[in-house]
Amino acid sequence: MHAVILAAGQGTRMKSAKPKVLHELGGKPMLGHVIDAAQALGAAAIHVVVGHGAEQVRAWAASADAGSTLQWAEQREQKGTAHAVQQAMPQIPDDAQVLILYGDVPLVSADSLRALVQAGRKTLALATVELDGPQGYGRIVRNRQKRVTGIVEQKDATPRQRAIREVNTGLMSAPAKRLRGWLAKVGNDNAAGEFYLTDIVAMAVKAKLEVATVTADANEVEGANDRLQLARLERLLQQRQVDALMRAGVAFADPSRFDLRGRFEHGRDVSIDIGCIFEGDVVLGDGVRIGAYSILRDVRLGSGTVVQPHSMLDGCEAGADCVIGPFARVRPSTTLAAGAHLGNFVEVKNAALGTETKANHLAYVGDASIGARTNIGAGVITCNYDGANKHRTIIGDDVFVGSDTQLVAPVTVKDGATIGAGSTITRDVPGGGLTIARAREQKTVSGWQRPRKRK
Amino acid sequence: MHAVILAAGQGTRMKSAKPKVLHELGGKPMLGHVIDAAQALGAAAIHVVVGHGAEQVRAWAASADAGSTLQWAEQREQKGTAHAVQQAMPQIPDDAQVLILYGDVPLVSADSLRALVQAGRKTLALATVELDGPQGYGRIVRNRQKRVTGIVEQKDATPRQRAIREVNTGLMSAPAKRLRGWLAKVGNDNAAGEFYLTDIVAMAVKAKLEVATVTADANEVEGANDRLQLARLERLLQQRQVDALMRAGVAFADPSRFDLRGRFEHGRDVSIDIGCIFEGDVVLGDGVRIGAYSILRDVRLGSGTVVQPHSMLDGCEAGADCVIGPFARVRPSTTLAAGAHLGNFVEVKNAALGTETKANHLAYVGDASIGARTNIGAGVITCNYDGANKHRTIIGDDVFVGSDTQLVAPVTVKDGATIGAGSTITRDVPGGGLTIARAREQKTVSGWQRPRKRK
Amino acid sequence: MHAVILAAGQGTRMKSAKPKVLHELGGKPMLGHVIDAAQALGAAAIHVVVGHGAEQVRAWAASADAGSTLQWAEQREQKGTAHAVQQAMPQIPDDAQVLILYGDVPLVSADSLRALVQAGRKTLALATVELDGPQGYGRIVRNRQKRVTGIVEQKDATPRQRAIREVNTGLMSAPAKRLRGWLAKVGNDNAAGEFYLTDIVAMAVKAKLEVATVTADANEVEGANDRLQLARLERLLQQRQVDALMRAGVAFADPSRFDLRGRFEHGRDVSIDIGCIFEGDVVLGDGVRIGAYSILRDVRLGSGTVVQPHSMLDGCEAGADCVIGPFARVRPSTTLAAGAHLGNFVEVKNAALGTETKANHLAYVGDASIGARTNIGAGVITCNYDGANKHRTIIGDDVFVGSDTQLVAPVTVKDGATIGAGSTITRDVPGGGLTIARAREQKTVSGWQRPRKRK
Repeated sequence: MHAVILAAGQGTRMKSAKPKVLHELGGKPMLGHVIDAAQALGAAAIHVVVGHGAEQVRAWAASADAGSTLQWAEQREQKGTAHAVQQAMPQIPDDAQVLILYGDVPLVSADSLRALVQAGRKTLALATVELDGPQGYGRIVRNRQKRVTGIVEQKDATPRQRAIREVNTGLMSAPAKRLRGWLAKVGNDNAAGEFYLTDIVAMAVKAKLEVATVTADANEVEGANDRLQLARLERLLQQRQVDALMRAGVAFADPSRFDLRGRFEHGRDVSIDIGCIFEGDVVLGDGVRIGAYSILRDVRLGSGTVVQPHSMLDGCEAGADCVIGPFARVRPSTTLAAGAHLGNFVEVKNAALGTETKANHLAYVGDASIGARTNIGAGVITCNYDGANKHRTIIGDDVFVGSDTQLVAPVTVKDGATIGAGSTITRDVPGGGLTIARAREQKTVSGWQRPRKRK
Repeated sequence: MHAVILAAGQGTRMKSAKPKVLHELGGKPMLGHVIDAAQALGAAAIHVVVGHGAEQVRAWAASADAGSTLQWAEQREQKGTAHAVQQAMPQIPDDAQVLILYGDVPLVSADSLRALVQAGRKTLALATVELDGPQGYGRIVRNRQKRVTGIVEQKDATPRQRAIREVNTGLMSAPAKRLRGWLAKVGNDNAAGEFYLTDIVAMAVKAKLEVATVTADANEVEGANDRLQLARLERLLQQRQVDALMRAGVAFADPSRFDLRGRFEHGRDVSIDIGCIFEGDVVLGDGVRIGAYSILRDVRLGSGTVVQPHSMLDGCEAGADCVIGPFARVRPSTTLAAGAHLGNFVEVKNAALGTETKANHLAYVGDASIGARTNIGAGVITCNYDGANKHRTIIGDDVFVGSDTQLVAPVTVKDGATIGAGSTITRDVPGGGLTIARAREQKTVSGWQRPRKRK
Repeated sequence: MHAVILAAGQGTRMKSAKPKVLHELGGKPMLGHVIDAAQALGAAAIHVVVGHGAEQVRAWAASADAGSTLQWAEQREQKGTAHAVQQAMPQIPDDAQVLILYGDVPLVSADSLRALVQAGRKTLALATVELDGPQGYGRIVRNRQKRVTGIVEQKDATPRQRAIREVNTGLMSAPAKRLRGWLAKVGNDNAAGEFYLTDIVAMAVKAKLEVATVTADANEVEGANDRLQLARLERLLQQRQVDALMRAGVAFADPSRFDLRGRFEHGRDVSIDIGCIFEGDVVLGDGVRIGAYSILRDVRLGSGTVVQPHSMLDGCEAGADCVIGPFARVRPSTTLAAGAHLGNFVEVKNAALGTETKANHLAYVGDASIGARTNIGAGVITCNYDGANKHRTIIGDDVFVGSDTQLVAPVTVKDGATIGAGSTITRDVPGGGLTIARAREQKTVSGWQRPRKRK
């Protein structure tokens, strides 16, 4: 099976510098969703017909590693859907089956497509939907035997035909050889001067083929031509995703306030409070709880770990029973061993924290390796950047770093060291002792006059 | 009146290690809501029939102090609803009235139950609902005089019976003596081999009793068998709560984005911006305003106090006209006197701040007592933890603590003291003077070569 | 055209100390929306009839600079709508046209009002709506020629009249001279003893005038009598605003989770993640992206600037390609030159940051002017407040301020200076060199005994 994806439109109503099919749903361009669907069906090749913004589309596909099965066809002028499909036909062998998809119809289900491909093995198969308000769509006209006899457009329809609620979706499948023949005969003798793909339905009927139809769900064949429709599809996608997650046992305080833009794997009894956003790959173990308004991107958390509200985790792997947040910021290349704690207004990046190590208050831990059971006091800062290069801070097990200490990297603090509050640590710290690097004298000037409020 | 709550189900579709009735709505297990309803009706005893996860259910009830009126009955095998009720009957005297409730039908209103109890004083009373889509439910069959003649299950219903929209909810009330007699006669000669409670309706009819019915609202009798239904009930509960709060005069920017998981008392003209979560006991005085995305748990705020967005308050009592946040984190055992200010990225725990005292920027105030009109500078940290024990910081009135000062507890700062920025205070500070505990020399190495970017 | 806005009601059901018309929608009192609509129509004068809370209403109008076209009329006793309008009539010349509006019907569209004014040039014109549930409203009675013959109230309506779905909205327009004549004749011989404005419809009919009608949308004529209705109108307003923004090309991850309380101007391809709130005047250049849960008030951002999630910006102007947040707090009078960065847990107020200058972690920058390409280290604090006055910190270009430095203002740091971590800078810093103001010795006490946990 060869899939042809029409992706040449500009999407003027999006009012965007981006071609239409690159507008995103769930963090991925609409085109990406359609490619995924074609790949899920096992397409031998996926032909993407590009036009407006072709370079941007190709650049996205390259960066997203969208798959080696992609082949490109270019429709230089927008002369209609039949013309678009024809651009891909030279690359498709006669004995292939063709499935025609649309880069701006992103939510089509694999089940419907599978049925469509199945139905189109020997004939032309159309996906149709029943609409309560079919105005504007091409109606599926059937004879008494319920066989399709044609598609009639709104403007050509008789009052009786206008009452037909079954409409064409544009999604089709047919044997390549037949399709090639029909496409060659499509004309552009119409108001717009375009070559319309729907014209092949009449040709199939004329060829005495029984045109097959597959009923799709109205939601899955909706297209996005403007930002309103795109926003509507985003909600449909999110609802579909969250419903599946709830059926799989994930607890959501409010499923309508969860946004998944990527993949989410989970254990048992994972619970997610309101307003969370997951991006990239998120993997949560049994009993993980995510607090309200937390944002996770490329995160893997061990069982029993709790993320408190208003936290942002990006590129983080944590063991079991960690406590993170609230108001924690974890940046890429961070690992937390089991039982580690990160508290409020703490930033961690490119760092490893050992078992049960804690940094609970207002700290910056960057480019650091920290052992087990170490306590990073409030306001501690690893001075990892000298203005030109980044340096590493190494801290051992069972260390106590007093509040507001600066660790000027590169520096090493050995096991069991204690550092007094307010120290500026510029040299390595031996294990076991108490190290202080601050003025020890405390002086009081009595009789001192406070500043007065200026008039 | 004795209430019997059936709470033995596993809730397989929840896909959870927790028994079904412990899944939470509004921060409280479903069973808790049902117990509350029974208590609101003044039940003399509440019999909870447990089975799956019985130990967990009992443990929850003990921890939640769910009330001394609870009595436990155990249904070791799941042999149907009649069998479940029977487990409780030995504890119920003949002259009691019995109300049968379900641990997974948590939103039932006290009004409906009161009517049901009233109707069931001498006969069997059923709560029924009218459904637009009654498929799958047992239909209430009535004769021409509108008297109930039986309940017919979906599979046994004639086409005419299937059109009946009034269905059984399972909620019932009856005199204990009659109920005991009927239960003894319920058989299990059915496909599932279970003893069904609904069978007693036919017995009541046969005994020439007029079966009473009470009409309930469809929402209040919905059960939660999976996470989707649970999420739906959560929204129903939240909507019910927020509607009542709006009618009582609370202003919500968006009632569909407010989550109350506990009790909320309020004065006049309280306004709550979008996305707030209240847990535990929250009491807000007149004119209190809560900013967007703030999370309050066990909080009491005086009139005119403003909480700015993105704040988290837990276990906090504040006087009038305080300003808290944005991005403030208040932890348990914190009290703020009138006019105190807590600003962004400030954490306070187990501390008392006096009148008009301010800690506005990036500070950590823990285990501290601070007087009135004191200014806690940016980045100030109370070093309350020495690695083993917590110590207290005592600060007087009219103190100025310069930015980035560390107060190494235990330490006392007397009234009117001024502490210079960057000091590490390890000894008590006398009142009135200027105290500095830092290196006072500032040296510049000129001709110094900056680090260069590594290649 | 003279507009008369009835704004005398108390709004008892709001349960508020504020008069009804001052309750806010989209950050502006309902009355403000109505005044805006009248101004958009080019009213020569706007007469606001106040009563309950008249002083508060006037005070709001003064503070909001609601326009010099406002004229006040006072209705001391609440004797009905006709009586209210009459309070304004002495100020309206005979040759004016009058448009009657309601301070608690805030969402009425300029289009509908324009049509109403147009229709009422020579006769009485009414705005009407078609309701599916017209119960309780005055029905528009028409004769066979579809001409209006009267308004009949619910209680006086025949069954046939009750089936009428077209109802009166109260919005009217008429020539002042005619209106004055009718108002003089309105009586109060009714149960409430009030003078009802609707009575003038019968007078117009009696005068053989053809009463004109304009059909409005049901949503735009909804009033707010309690907090539930107010919350509903807020959502209608928000939906209307966000739909218009999407049509203009703004991308919203979820339009139902965006709150605009002011004006929003935007370039092309602006995208706004979930949960953002915009207040005051927000102007965003091409390609600006705003992260989830960010709150912007009076903000202007150059093209390509990115605000990461959970940021709060108030009174901030930024150039192109800045990166702000997450968890950034920007306070008024802040300007960022192109390419500046503000990171997590950073507070900036009344400060200017030069091109590509960065303050990425846990810093407080207040009352400061900073040049280009300067790096403000983690935990740096400008000590701008001496307990009585604020002082300024001046930092040049290409400065490196080491982590946890305190800059005790007033202080100047010259171009190219480097300040060592943990310094307390109390004197001006020359350019080019390395300045350190901290204890340089680091001492370790070996054999030191750690504190032990108290029993």
